Amino acid sequence: MHVREMLTTHPHAQGQALQAISDEGMQTLADCVAACYDCAQACTSCADACLGEQDVEMLRRCIALNLMCADVCLATGAVATRLTARSETVLAAQLRACAEACRACGEECEKHAGHMEHCKVCASACRECQQACEGLLRRIAA
Amino acid sequence: MHVREMLTTHPHAQGQALQAISDEGMQTLADCVAACYDCAQACTSCADACLGEQDVEMLRRCIALNLMCADVCLATGAVATRLTARSETVLAAQLRACAEACRACGEECEKHAGHMEHCKVCASACRECQQACEGLLRRIAA
Amino acid sequence: MHVREMLTTHPHAQGQALQAISDEGMQTLADCVAACYDCAQACTSCADACLGEQDVEMLRRCIALNLMCADVCLATGAVATRLTARSETVLAAQLRACAEACRACGEECEKHAGHMEHCKVCASACRECQQACEGLLRRIAA
Amino acid sequence: MHVREMLTTHPHAQGQALQAISDEGMQTLADCVAACYDCAQACTSCADACLGEQDVEMLRRCIALNLMCADVCLATGAVATRLTARSETVLAAQLRACAEACRACGEECEKHAGHMEHCKVCASACRECQQACEGLLRRIAA
Repeated sequence: MHVREMLTTHPHAQGQALQAISDEGMQTLADCVAACYDCAQACTSCADACLGEQDVEMLRRCIALNLMCADVCLATGAVATRLTARSETVLAAQLRACAEACRACGEECEKHAGHMEHCKVCASACRECQQACEGLLRRIAA
Repeated sequence: MHVREMLTTHPHAQGQALQAISDEGMQTLADCVAACYDCAQACTSCADACLGEQDVEMLRRCIALNLMCADVCLATGAVATRLTARSETVLAAQLRACAEACRACGEECEKHAGHMEHCKVCASACRECQQACEGLLRRIAA
Repeated sequence: MHVREMLTTHPHAQGQALQAISDEGMQTLADCVAACYDCAQACTSCADACLGEQDVEMLRRCIALNLMCADVCLATGAVATRLTARSETVLAAQLRACAEACRACGEECEKHAGHMEHCKVCASACRECQQACEGLLRRIAA
Repeated sequence: MHVREMLTTHPHAQGQALQAISDEGMQTLADCVAACYDCAQACTSCADACLGEQDVEMLRRCIALNLMCADVCLATGAVATRLTARSETVLAAQLRACAEACRACGEECEKHAGHMEHCKVCASACRECQQACEGLLRRIAA
């Protein structure tokens, strides 16, 4: 992905701007944005893979949480991407929703990780995204 | 929109289900879902209208908040739509993010409502969506 | 929805602009945008309702087509909403994808319309959206 | 991103299934999905970076095309991700819309690539996504 290149070349991220973002802050931000888009794709894919499994009946909850998580991750990735006129209040609220969605979805996927590889990979993507959102939240609060 | 028809025919909204939703609760939910999709369209449209205005330079903040609000509203509309295996924790967090995004965007649009009709209409859509999200939040908390 | 109010107050839709859109063209456009957002919500809702049905195994195809249709409708609604620097080539291609997605999803929903009310309502929303996309396509081609 | 891992563990991508996808076909598919999500993020970021530039007035067209391209890419990434009950007609139409959106947006970004690094990076992301969509289209047609 081109996330880091895109964010570091933004006029508000450059050295001369008042709002210039530190190198470390930029890495936390870029990691979070990349994790959100990655997790959105993984959850969309996992919902579809579960739907194609023989025991789809047992996987209703997983599919529903996957779809919810995908939607929340996409919005969070876009909101975190934007640096112009950023509202830190909205960003923080959206990151909290996303960390919570990733936690719920990751825990459900984890339950089937033993016998369904797509749930195992998706649980990983959810965990990484949850941690990335929590990391960015801590930095905003600081 | 077919929002209310769709939600009331959902198996989890029907009388026999444990999770059956009261008539009043259903109206609050349907209003919120409809307001989210409406506000997403209005904000996408207002960002584009601002971009076409002569004094686009003065409207950067409005465009940025419009785009943020559109993304948050879409995710909230989809999350609120889903009743199967619903996570009330995630729904509540997402509603808070949405109410906050609509407040920020509506306040900005209000500033230009006097001389730009699209900002006036969009401020209305934001206010309705903020109130609808707050209404559903109160019901979930209750 | 505020679709028509938003579109008619856009600077490019006003009388003095070169790109001014006729009243009739505006109605076709507003109908298409509204139908896209409506159908996106209906399909998201129908996928979730099918997922909550006892015979979810028989509904895999319906759920998959619903989810695909929701994604295509959302993109189409946003692309059709934007009038600034509009690419008619992309709009036309996106409208064709959307008409096709609505046709496929509507036909599948129709099969279950007899015993599942949500599929019946969703089939309606798909049909309306397909026709609205085809209507706008004809106008662009003209 | 976890795209390839997610797609290869899908039940319909496994050896025993009738719909099993060849290794080469899987790589083409995974490349396209990853490119769509990457390009969606790059275009969202470029629109926001352009909005923060001093000469925003000169960048209206770039911002508008960026936003359109982001929406089309997201829908295409999700549609291409889903293998259950896939409609090749819709996928092909969506890939054509996406290749066209990436071409239009990439050409516009290229014009400013000389003095705005974010447009240069975004033009790259658009070009890669256009080629990935065209590659998958050729495979479907074959």
